[in-house]
Amino acid sequence: MDSVTKRVLAIFLYPNMTTLDFVGPHEVLSRIPGMEVKKVAKVKGPVTADTGLQIVADYSIDEVSEADLLLIPGGTDTFTSMEDKAVVDWVKKIDTTTGRTVSVCTGSLLLAKAGLLEGRPATTHWATLDMLKEFGAEPMQERMVESGKYLTAAGVSAGIDMGLALTAQLTNDDFAQLMQLFIEYDPAPPFNAGSPKTAPAHILEMAKTTFGVQ
Amino acid sequence: MDSVTKRVLAIFLYPNMTTLDFVGPHEVLSRIPGMEVKKVAKVKGPVTADTGLQIVADYSIDEVSEADLLLIPGGTDTFTSMEDKAVVDWVKKIDTTTGRTVSVCTGSLLLAKAGLLEGRPATTHWATLDMLKEFGAEPMQERMVESGKYLTAAGVSAGIDMGLALTAQLTNDDFAQLMQLFIEYDPAPPFNAGSPKTAPAHILEMAKTTFGVQ
Repeated sequence: MDSVTKRVLAIFLYPNMTTLDFVGPHEVLSRIPGMEVKKVAKVKGPVTADTGLQIVADYSIDEVSEADLLLIPGGTDTFTSMEDKAVVDWVKKIDTTTGRTVSVCTGSLLLAKAGLLEGRPATTHWATLDMLKEFGAEPMQERMVESGKYLTAAGVSAGIDMGLALTAQLTNDDFAQLMQLFIEYDPAPPFNAGSPKTAPAHILEMAKTTFGVQ
Repeated sequence: MDSVTKRVLAIFLYPNMTTLDFVGPHEVLSRIPGMEVKKVAKVKGPVTADTGLQIVADYSIDEVSEADLLLIPGGTDTFTSMEDKAVVDWVKKIDTTTGRTVSVCTGSLLLAKAGLLEGRPATTHWATLDMLKEFGAEPMQERMVESGKYLTAAGVSAGIDMGLALTAQLTNDDFAQLMQLFIEYDPAPPFNAGSPKTAPAHILEMAKTTFGVQ
């Protein structure tokens, strides 16, 4: 038996986060041998997602001061957390201790707000791509963007692809493929509307109106 | 403004469930206008998934006696719930009230145990496909199988595809595509190992050993 690398993955939970953003990568990252996952929120206890689902955070931010990996999910209101100095300071502090800092969807806006993506290429949900510029990051419309130790994924479901890629980096291609087979990730979307590049024009227009994209 | 159809979606949560199984479809189904989601467990409160994630159930099974839709996720221990008469009886009872009863992954084994899939084609996680036969269902190695009001999806991530297909059935193709674009579901798996049909032979062998498949 190979020796197991012990690692701590801190996932930041906050009100109106999008659950799939972190559940996708967590489903595979948490199964890496030796991985301890800490669910961290401003205040520990149940955190209510944008769909009403409640996930329990087992740590408050003042109880976690370091991690090997930091994962920030997106949500329909990441902005309130971006305006919260205690949260932004915690993100900055943990990042000084991590080997990898990763985000899904608008989670990268929180990283950017903390000044961590300045001058770096990064991605986020397609509808908020322009906002990365405000914090000095270089927006890329890609499924996943790697820059140094930072890995940012596009909207919501992109976290699954990112989670598998990160699993391969942390372990090896065989283990990542084992995880892909475990979650039977052989996608067969019933439509081809998952990206602004492929969605029918009227769906994209509807989405821009719904999400308030200029 | 069209009138909104009010519906209740009951999701059954149980120990060692796989979170992505229900979070995938929930992410889109819960955003259908008029949809009320009830997270139901044998006893309400936090339910611990197979990865350690805790999701709060807001209802106990004795508090929910009907639903328009019933969703049963899979998990690495669905068997304990299948042996729990109170749970199986509840599944049977709710099913008599639903318009659609759906499952992801090994969730279909619980439906089958409740006698609901007898003589019907159905699917489940690839590693447990043969078990469906024990309860009189006809196993199909498909991403999603529809039989009457029953919709069964393959392992874990297949719930996302099923959730979008079901959303289209409950609303229309435009709304389902809007949801696909919202969750930016334009999959780009870093490997092609998501199905026993595509996984490299040595990965499939490793998976069979890991999951105890004969």
